[in-house]
Amino acid sequence: MTIENVSQAKVFGGWHKQYTHDSAVLNCNMRFAIFLPPNATKSNPVPVLYWLSGLTCTDENFMQKAGAFRKAAELGIAIVAPDTSPRGDDVADDEGYDLGKGAGFYLNSTQEPWSRHYQMYDYVTQELPALIEANFPVSELKSISGHSMGGHGALTIGLKNAAAYRSISAFSPISNPMQCPWGQKAFNAYLGSDFSTWQQYDASELLKQAKAELPILVDQGDADGFLVEQLKPEALLAAAQVHGSDVKLRMQPGYDHSYYFISSFIDEHLAFHAKHLNK
Amino acid sequence: MTIENVSQAKVFGGWHKQYTHDSAVLNCNMRFAIFLPPNATKSNPVPVLYWLSGLTCTDENFMQKAGAFRKAAELGIAIVAPDTSPRGDDVADDEGYDLGKGAGFYLNSTQEPWSRHYQMYDYVTQELPALIEANFPVSELKSISGHSMGGHGALTIGLKNAAAYRSISAFSPISNPMQCPWGQKAFNAYLGSDFSTWQQYDASELLKQAKAELPILVDQGDADGFLVEQLKPEALLAAAQVHGSDVKLRMQPGYDHSYYFISSFIDEHLAFHAKHLNK
Repeated sequence: MTIENVSQAKVFGGWHKQYTHDSAVLNCNMRFAIFLPPNATKSNPVPVLYWLSGLTCTDENFMQKAGAFRKAAELGIAIVAPDTSPRGDDVADDEGYDLGKGAGFYLNSTQEPWSRHYQMYDYVTQELPALIEANFPVSELKSISGHSMGGHGALTIGLKNAAAYRSISAFSPISNPMQCPWGQKAFNAYLGSDFSTWQQYDASELLKQAKAELPILVDQGDADGFLVEQLKPEALLAAAQVHGSDVKLRMQPGYDHSYYFISSFIDEHLAFHAKHLNK
Repeated sequence: MTIENVSQAKVFGGWHKQYTHDSAVLNCNMRFAIFLPPNATKSNPVPVLYWLSGLTCTDENFMQKAGAFRKAAELGIAIVAPDTSPRGDDVADDEGYDLGKGAGFYLNSTQEPWSRHYQMYDYVTQELPALIEANFPVSELKSISGHSMGGHGALTIGLKNAAAYRSISAFSPISNPMQCPWGQKAFNAYLGSDFSTWQQYDASELLKQAKAELPILVDQGDADGFLVEQLKPEALLAAAQVHGSDVKLRMQPGYDHSYYFISSFIDEHLAFHAKHLNK
């Protein structure tokens, strides 16, 4: 597994770098970004927060707009941001912004024409961490976070792989995708009509099935234009109560769905993850 | 002078807002952005830092990428980011990224076809502050900062209008535009061949003419690809010594020309300006 460096910039004494690599899982060339804090060395491998972005994003949105590096440098946490879908001219796409490229939904597709490339669940849980741990001064300690579609990804991946992560957080997650237009469109296309498969990629359904083994922090702006139709944090909270899962949902008055919202609270998410990564 | 709100987002308890307005000075419709800290009210008007961006930028680059709002909210400073040139279909342009739209150089053009719209010096020093002070809970206390072409703008505008500002800072400024390709191309087009006019828009020339009446802080990355050919901070420093001007130039090892660099030191610039704004 070789990776190719395509950019680097010093930031807060650490480094932001972008790499491309051929993905065996996704069957295409992919780009990811990593922030390495100043204290990361071979003799001092640091824990990693994986960040999953939302619809239409690449590895760049969070890295450029979240303002996360000051705190991550201070806490000694690396951050890895994958792309949000497979990429390339031969990858199936849709004219909508909410399906196809930029909209991989962090699942393994079972349906043509999507299944050949859209295996983002395996990419994020297997191939990417192996690549990161083989090439950078990081430990195996991981936490996971994300925004919107990426909040859905962080919740479902963290819940299903509790042994691999220490903590989960999300901003404005798609909390119950089976019950919202974004999720229904994507699941229909990528997964077909088998609802038992859908349930395995729905955070609220997973919390109804079993108690979460990891602590979960969720921030949601109450002025978010997608709140009622698409995000449904109340479903997540209700599902958490079924088995007494540790889900802290904070409704943040006046905040919307943008990176201005994320930047306002990312320090608190980093501190939350640091607490669990440094146990 | 009416302004129209086109976006707003809560951030760090304050607000980021964008507005459009008809500019009498620039003879076109313009957009600017403002950050208002949480403590800004009519009964508690706050000081303003004007931020001038670099080549190809709009009002959005700094606001989205600098990570400035946490500290600005804490210090109680508003930030205003104008666009970098006049805009619109009837505004003269050039196919280069370093002339025409996105490259106004914060001067008043005297040459056809530019002079009809390219009056960014008057816009930034007169029309925009009047608009801001008439429409927002801000005081008349102002400081000025910027990056690259905007660093040139901040230095020249601050030096020539010492009574209007309290302090000046810059990241990677074009320090001696008469002696670099970016500056020579722009000054030739906008100002013609009269070198005495050029000198009025060159920070190093201004510092040779007279002692700076304001304190100046400059950060420059030593891994900046534009450093030697375009930026020339050593000329600024030498010019500052002619009359003993208070110019602090900090060479930052390993940093480049990007917003990752700006984000790493913006808190220190905000603290520098706050010290002088709150005297």
